[in-house]
Amino acid sequence: MASPSDHIGEFDLIQRFFKTGADAMHPQLAIGLGIGDDCALIYTATDEEMAITTDMLVEGRHFLIGANPELLGSKALAVNLSDLAAMGARPLGFTLALALPSADQKWLEAFSKGLFSTAKQYSCSLIGGDTTAGPLTISITAFGSLPTGKAIRRSGAKSGDDIWVSGTLGDARLALAALRHEISLSDADLKQIEHRMHQPAPRIELGIQLRDIASAALDVSDGLLGDLKHILKQSQVDAQILLDRLPKSEILLKQSIAIQNQFAACGGDDYELCFTAASHQRDVITRIGQSLHLAMTHIGQITAMKNTEASIELFSTDGNRLSAAETKPLLKSFDHFAS
Amino acid sequence: MASPSDHIGEFDLIQRFFKTGADAMHPQLAIGLGIGDDCALIYTATDEEMAITTDMLVEGRHFLIGANPELLGSKALAVNLSDLAAMGARPLGFTLALALPSADQKWLEAFSKGLFSTAKQYSCSLIGGDTTAGPLTISITAFGSLPTGKAIRRSGAKSGDDIWVSGTLGDARLALAALRHEISLSDADLKQIEHRMHQPAPRIELGIQLRDIASAALDVSDGLLGDLKHILKQSQVDAQILLDRLPKSEILLKQSIAIQNQFAACGGDDYELCFTAASHQRDVITRIGQSLHLAMTHIGQITAMKNTEASIELFSTDGNRLSAAETKPLLKSFDHFAS
Repeated sequence: MASPSDHIGEFDLIQRFFKTGADAMHPQLAIGLGIGDDCALIYTATDEEMAITTDMLVEGRHFLIGANPELLGSKALAVNLSDLAAMGARPLGFTLALALPSADQKWLEAFSKGLFSTAKQYSCSLIGGDTTAGPLTISITAFGSLPTGKAIRRSGAKSGDDIWVSGTLGDARLALAALRHEISLSDADLKQIEHRMHQPAPRIELGIQLRDIASAALDVSDGLLGDLKHILKQSQVDAQILLDRLPKSEILLKQSIAIQNQFAACGGDDYELCFTAASHQRDVITRIGQSLHLAMTHIGQITAMKNTEASIELFSTDGNRLSAAETKPLLKSFDHFAS
Repeated sequence: MASPSDHIGEFDLIQRFFKTGADAMHPQLAIGLGIGDDCALIYTATDEEMAITTDMLVEGRHFLIGANPELLGSKALAVNLSDLAAMGARPLGFTLALALPSADQKWLEAFSKGLFSTAKQYSCSLIGGDTTAGPLTISITAFGSLPTGKAIRRSGAKSGDDIWVSGTLGDARLALAALRHEISLSDADLKQIEHRMHQPAPRIELGIQLRDIASAALDVSDGLLGDLKHILKQSQVDAQILLDRLPKSEILLKQSIAIQNQFAACGGDDYELCFTAASHQRDVITRIGQSLHLAMTHIGQITAMKNTEASIELFSTDGNRLSAAETKPLLKSFDHFAS
């Protein structure tokens, strides 16, 4: 129970910590009315549609108990914006539903600071929300817009398409392993990759530029190969991946080959985009990468579906196909209900 | 930890319990793409805007531990639709973020049954979601559409406007009091009002019909007088309420006057609409009530603001103004962080 001086009512809380940032409206102003009424009002241009995504983060499951609230606020929004990026949408706004054990003002100040710093960076307004007492849980629903019919869906990959991934993979998983003392990492190295775990960068500009180029896309949140399977299933195709091509940071390259492969192929929390595109787009994609100062790596091919279930074949650099025993642990994706 | 036979993965869970209902698309089809991609896609007609609202329900705070999951699924969506109703919006779709301790299939079956029964009743599609392990928490964001500029905002009440409320007030609070053994109620009486607590009816049709008639509106979720204050604050006006006019059910009328007043004036969970309208609209409002078989009660007047803070004066039937001491307990609204 909060002491009287700590006590702050729900409406005060919204006014104090969340209203200001909501007033920092989206420059293109798709938003008619923000916090303070029964609903927010939002509209898009006549030839645009709206992309909507929702994520829930639970303390002890998605972030550690006592996690830095500023980083948490920033990441909670970023992971939603990453879903907009994967669709090719430009962020407009978001709603926040927040359960927290008490109206801890210090925590709220830090959390809203992180939240609005990401919101500002991506021109995305808080348009509505709900706060309540309860176990620390953050649920964000984010809205973006894009020209009608231009969304990059998961279902568009075709046999013969190249498979690409942005940035590098596995660093968020590596940082987690270091923080959990599963592997040892120098302080300098940890410092260099820690932001990949705490402050993922949603690839908004990349998504927008890929609208007319990618045949399918998603963001890598649960691990590359597991996530790629969603594209394969929805597109009814298979994939071949050259394991040694997976892009890795200098820090991850210092680890054993086994760790490198495991973290790059199935470490979660990377929030890079994995996408497919026809091979004649290679030069265009390379130029997009250069203009965004973001690595674009061609990691494999989409192939025709061989069986009833979509499958991934893994190859080493020398062209040898990995055995089922070598492949299996790499195809294990993160399952939020796995026991 | 779930036993192997209980185990069901996150994607299976979405497919199994939530995908079917999502396919029951909104008849006006504002929705391009539902569950299964990074985002849902949604669009409205050129001359429409979208109303968006979000609510989070936490076990032990908003519903009892062990609450009937079917009723819970139904209510979780209904309370969001009630916010759309208060704006005059027609429901289109919603996202669901759900944390639950384990993937309990029996619970999920019942919950999704209740959820989709309400969704179907109000032609509202599940368009996206997120499921995770965690303390039972339900966060829904609902979307509705309405002609641009027609939203009924909280800020439009004017001095001289009538104040109206739909249906009856206080029954949800009465049912809660009976279930908590704070008051005694016959089984027959409890049975007759229990649905007001478990299955609130969002006043969607009423909201739509009030678009050109009401000057301000909101739904009564935390108690009439506390909620009315939001209209007063945002409209910068005061109110006079005739306490004896508050509409009460036959069951509530059996209670003491003190209980009647307290439950009708500040009991939560009613989900009726409280709205203001110019006095020349009285006949129209009465006819709307008749056509919807829903009582419409004129409970007071909007007056000019006397001080810097919006205030409510309460009157008894004989025209006597209640003293500050009589008024104070009735103006206490529900605060989710009150200690």
